[in-house]
Amino acid sequence: MTSLRIRRPDDFHVHLRQGDMLRDVLPSTAMIFGRALVMPNTLPPVLTGDDAVRYERTIRDAAVMAGASAVDFQPLMTIKIVASTTPEIITEAKAKGVIAGKLYPEGVTTNSEDGPKNLRSLFPVFERMQSEGMVLCLHGEVPGVFCMDREEVFLHSLRDLAVIFPRLRMVLEHVTTAAAVQAVMDTSFLSPGVPGNVAATITPHHLLLTLDDVVGDKLRPHHFCKPIAKKPSDRDALVRAATSGNPRFFLGTDSAPHARDQKECASGCAGVFCAPVAMEVLAEVFEDHHALDKLEAFTSEFGARFYGLPLNEGHVTLMKPKDSPYAVPERIHIVDGEIVPFRAGETLRWLCEV
Amino acid sequence: MTSLRIRRPDDFHVHLRQGDMLRDVLPSTAMIFGRALVMPNTLPPVLTGDDAVRYERTIRDAAVMAGASAVDFQPLMTIKIVASTTPEIITEAKAKGVIAGKLYPEGVTTNSEDGPKNLRSLFPVFERMQSEGMVLCLHGEVPGVFCMDREEVFLHSLRDLAVIFPRLRMVLEHVTTAAAVQAVMDTSFLSPGVPGNVAATITPHHLLLTLDDVVGDKLRPHHFCKPIAKKPSDRDALVRAATSGNPRFFLGTDSAPHARDQKECASGCAGVFCAPVAMEVLAEVFEDHHALDKLEAFTSEFGARFYGLPLNEGHVTLMKPKDSPYAVPERIHIVDGEIVPFRAGETLRWLCEV
Repeated sequence: MTSLRIRRPDDFHVHLRQGDMLRDVLPSTAMIFGRALVMPNTLPPVLTGDDAVRYERTIRDAAVMAGASAVDFQPLMTIKIVASTTPEIITEAKAKGVIAGKLYPEGVTTNSEDGPKNLRSLFPVFERMQSEGMVLCLHGEVPGVFCMDREEVFLHSLRDLAVIFPRLRMVLEHVTTAAAVQAVMDTSFLSPGVPGNVAATITPHHLLLTLDDVVGDKLRPHHFCKPIAKKPSDRDALVRAATSGNPRFFLGTDSAPHARDQKECASGCAGVFCAPVAMEVLAEVFEDHHALDKLEAFTSEFGARFYGLPLNEGHVTLMKPKDSPYAVPERIHIVDGEIVPFRAGETLRWLCEV
Repeated sequence: MTSLRIRRPDDFHVHLRQGDMLRDVLPSTAMIFGRALVMPNTLPPVLTGDDAVRYERTIRDAAVMAGASAVDFQPLMTIKIVASTTPEIITEAKAKGVIAGKLYPEGVTTNSEDGPKNLRSLFPVFERMQSEGMVLCLHGEVPGVFCMDREEVFLHSLRDLAVIFPRLRMVLEHVTTAAAVQAVMDTSFLSPGVPGNVAATITPHHLLLTLDDVVGDKLRPHHFCKPIAKKPSDRDALVRAATSGNPRFFLGTDSAPHARDQKECASGCAGVFCAPVAMEVLAEVFEDHHALDKLEAFTSEFGARFYGLPLNEGHVTLMKPKDSPYAVPERIHIVDGEIVPFRAGETLRWLCEV
């Protein structure tokens, strides 16, 4: 097979940043994906419906500036669930088009210092999200726990929330462990007859990386992200989940650009800028696991269905150009420096075009 | 207690490098330690007795240049055990004063591309080391294994070697796991009546760090070393071993300087430059674990006894200066850039002086 035409994909987890960085990185997402769920951990954070409306306008303006191919990109907006979030904020945000609230436990990743310490105090907020039909997106790690165990320890909370709020749709974001995959699958057994309310996103880079790719040979800051990539057996479980055709697992790239000097330094930021290669990497992984026929559902159907959105109208084409394979640039120049993308300097066998 | 006078310590594992770097880093070791076992993974490597004699002369010249306090520093020389090492090389090296051979499995750390792939082919070499009384120093990791498991998997080989060569003294270098601590303790039960032939060095930084300090929050390249720091329970086992008074565990700093731009980059080198703070960090750890009375044996007796060397004559003093605690510099300027030492920018409560 040298060409594969699939429905235009959605990215259900992306960091589009702000200012110059937003304008620099947006095209990588907007030229391929029909929609993207935009994370709210900006500075200042997106806390209310009004914040989200303002941020959405900024993104749409940047898309117009990026040119014709990005102009029909649709940002899907989120707010950040913090200790001060109220049920009223949920209702107001929902009315203004916000489709999800993102919960970061305190201190767990970039700009999460304002995260709640106590999930129980947020139960009225979750209750309202459930009744409003707003999705709860979870950064599923418990701070303070040993880094390799943080996600697995969080699964207790996930299981509890799935029992207490059986109609609250939850997405465990960027899963990295076999245990998390199993927990997501388990929740469908909790309430027989009730459609499963827990899904998970999987990133392209977590389908390839293990901790060995971060600290196993040289130290690779551009493979450093949260949650940290785990064991080979975990990575294999993610590949099985992504390629299985199980509608609870869908694409969220967690593409998270940082300027190179924020990565290659004494105190490096977490995040992999995978947007420029996301579809190409997925095609590679799905092909290697004889599951190219499952790719379209993973990237373009399961997420939209879980969020209750119509499927995209357009299409993209994945090709294997014989003479000009995709040479990923070593660095992408931005206004304020440069970014090193995932797979920098490598040659990929697939290329995705609208 | 505000002052502690102990016998001058030995460092049974240090990387002194070559050229300008040697002259820049040597004083940190030579001004405190009476002797140091100098690792042979230079470029080109130290492979023979003649190589070791030349390298020793270079080190002694640098010590003279470093001034009076370093001039009676004694480098203890090693050769690198590679696939081409022969029993004759061992005998010749021993005659020229080499006291240990260092084995790096292929590709496991800095400059180890020439490491042997197969331990069995080295049995004639080990046999000769045993009969010559040369110590075998082991970088105890199996390449290709998941990074968190590399040391534990190597322990099978260690146990086998301890059975096959019951009089070959072996040092498992820079141990990082509870499993390795246990394996070293176990080997004394293999041959009742025979003095244990397996010991281990422990670094100052592995008494403090876990993987969380490398990838748990921001990415910290100056905490990145091989073997990678492991779990909190592993670190705790190392502290127990170091402070236990068991003579099979002694100090080897594995101080391994790299220029800052070789650490803070897209492909960072492994190694912690701990020599400038080694004794201070140890005093802190031993004090925190109510074991200051065990410090001198760990730093100044057990290693020398295992290697069959006389104890050092001189002394050093560890002080807790009330008014001027030890402010570790953020960066140490060297001819070709700068090095970031362990605990850079921190204030330590102990200070070690000759």
